[in-house]
Amino acid sequence: MEQSNRLNRELAYTGTILKVYRDTVVTNGVQKIYDFIHHDGAAAVLPVLEDGRILMVRQHRNALDRFTLEIPAGKLDAPDEPMIECAARELEEETGYRSDSLEYLMTINTTVAFCNERIGVYTAKNLIPSKQHLDDDECIDVEPWEVGDLLALIYDGKLCDAKTVAAITAYAQREGIR
Amino acid sequence: MEQSNRLNRELAYTGTILKVYRDTVVTNGVQKIYDFIHHDGAAAVLPVLEDGRILMVRQHRNALDRFTLEIPAGKLDAPDEPMIECAARELEEETGYRSDSLEYLMTINTTVAFCNERIGVYTAKNLIPSKQHLDDDECIDVEPWEVGDLLALIYDGKLCDAKTVAAITAYAQREGIR
Repeated sequence: MEQSNRLNRELAYTGTILKVYRDTVVTNGVQKIYDFIHHDGAAAVLPVLEDGRILMVRQHRNALDRFTLEIPAGKLDAPDEPMIECAARELEEETGYRSDSLEYLMTINTTVAFCNERIGVYTAKNLIPSKQHLDDDECIDVEPWEVGDLLALIYDGKLCDAKTVAAITAYAQREGIR
Repeated sequence: MEQSNRLNRELAYTGTILKVYRDTVVTNGVQKIYDFIHHDGAAAVLPVLEDGRILMVRQHRNALDRFTLEIPAGKLDAPDEPMIECAARELEEETGYRSDSLEYLMTINTTVAFCNERIGVYTAKNLIPSKQHLDDDECIDVEPWEVGDLLALIYDGKLCDAKTVAAITAYAQREGIR
C-alpha cells in the first residue's frame, strides 16, 4: 500500500502548548496541504478505590465551554518525561491520592488525522491519601464514581472525553463489568 | 465550582480543516493564554460482519508518520451534517459496504484540553456489499479482524487511535467479549 510522502513541513503558528504546521503531502500522485499539530504528549491515570469506585475529576474546559468529567491527566513536563512518572504526578496533584503501583493500560493517539498527541494511560490501585497540588489556574473537583454509572453516562452520550471513555470501557471490558 | 471565564478569542491561523485561536482565559483570578483549535466534527462507524469480525481500515497518517489500523471515519461534509449520515457515507466510501441499520454507540471529544472536535460513533450490522469510493488523496486497505485480536493489539500499545480504541473496547464491553 502506498505511503503518503511529505514534501515540506512549514511552521505556521506557535501556540502556548501547540505548534501548528502546514505540510505539503503527496498521496496517489495528488499534492495537498495538510494541517499538522505538534503536541508534546500526556499521561492519564484511572484511579481505582478499594471499593471499586473510580476517582474522577470535574473541571471547566475552555475548548468545550462546559464542565467535563474526566480521569486525571496532564501534559508531560518535558517531551522525554517518562509517561508513568507524569501519570503518577498528575494523580497526586489532581486527586490528592498517590499510588506506588501504576499499571500500564494502553496508549492513545487522540486525533490521528492532524495531531501527534499521545497519551499513556495507566491504572492505579492501592491509593494512599496525600495532598492535592493544583496549578494556579486549575480548579478541579474530585468525585468517586461507580464504573456502571460511568458506563451509563458514556452510552448516553454524556461522558465524551476520549481518554476517559477509552480507559473506562477498557477497564470494564478487562474486569468483565457489564 | 468556578467556571473559567474567557475574555477574548482571537483567530491566529486558518488551516485546511482547522482554525487556530488564541484565547485569553481567567480561572481563579489568574489570566492565561490558551490554545483553541476549532474542528467541524466527524463521525466513525464500527462495521460488524455476520461472523462477528470487524471491518478495519489501514492507511498512512501524515501526522504520525506511520500506517494506522482504524475504524472507518471521516469529517462532516458541513458542520450541520447529521453525524449518522456522515457515518453511513464514510462506511460505504472507505469499506465498500453499506448498512441500513446504524446504531448510536457514543460520542467522543478527541482532545478536550485544546480542541472542540466531536466524533459520533455508530455500530453497523447487516452489511451489504457496495462499492468503495475513495477521495483522490486516499489510499485505504480494508481488513476484517477478530475483536479479540484487536483487543490484544490495544492492550499491547500497538493500536492507539482514540476513536478506534474507544469503539472496540466499548463494543467488547457491551457484548461481553473477553
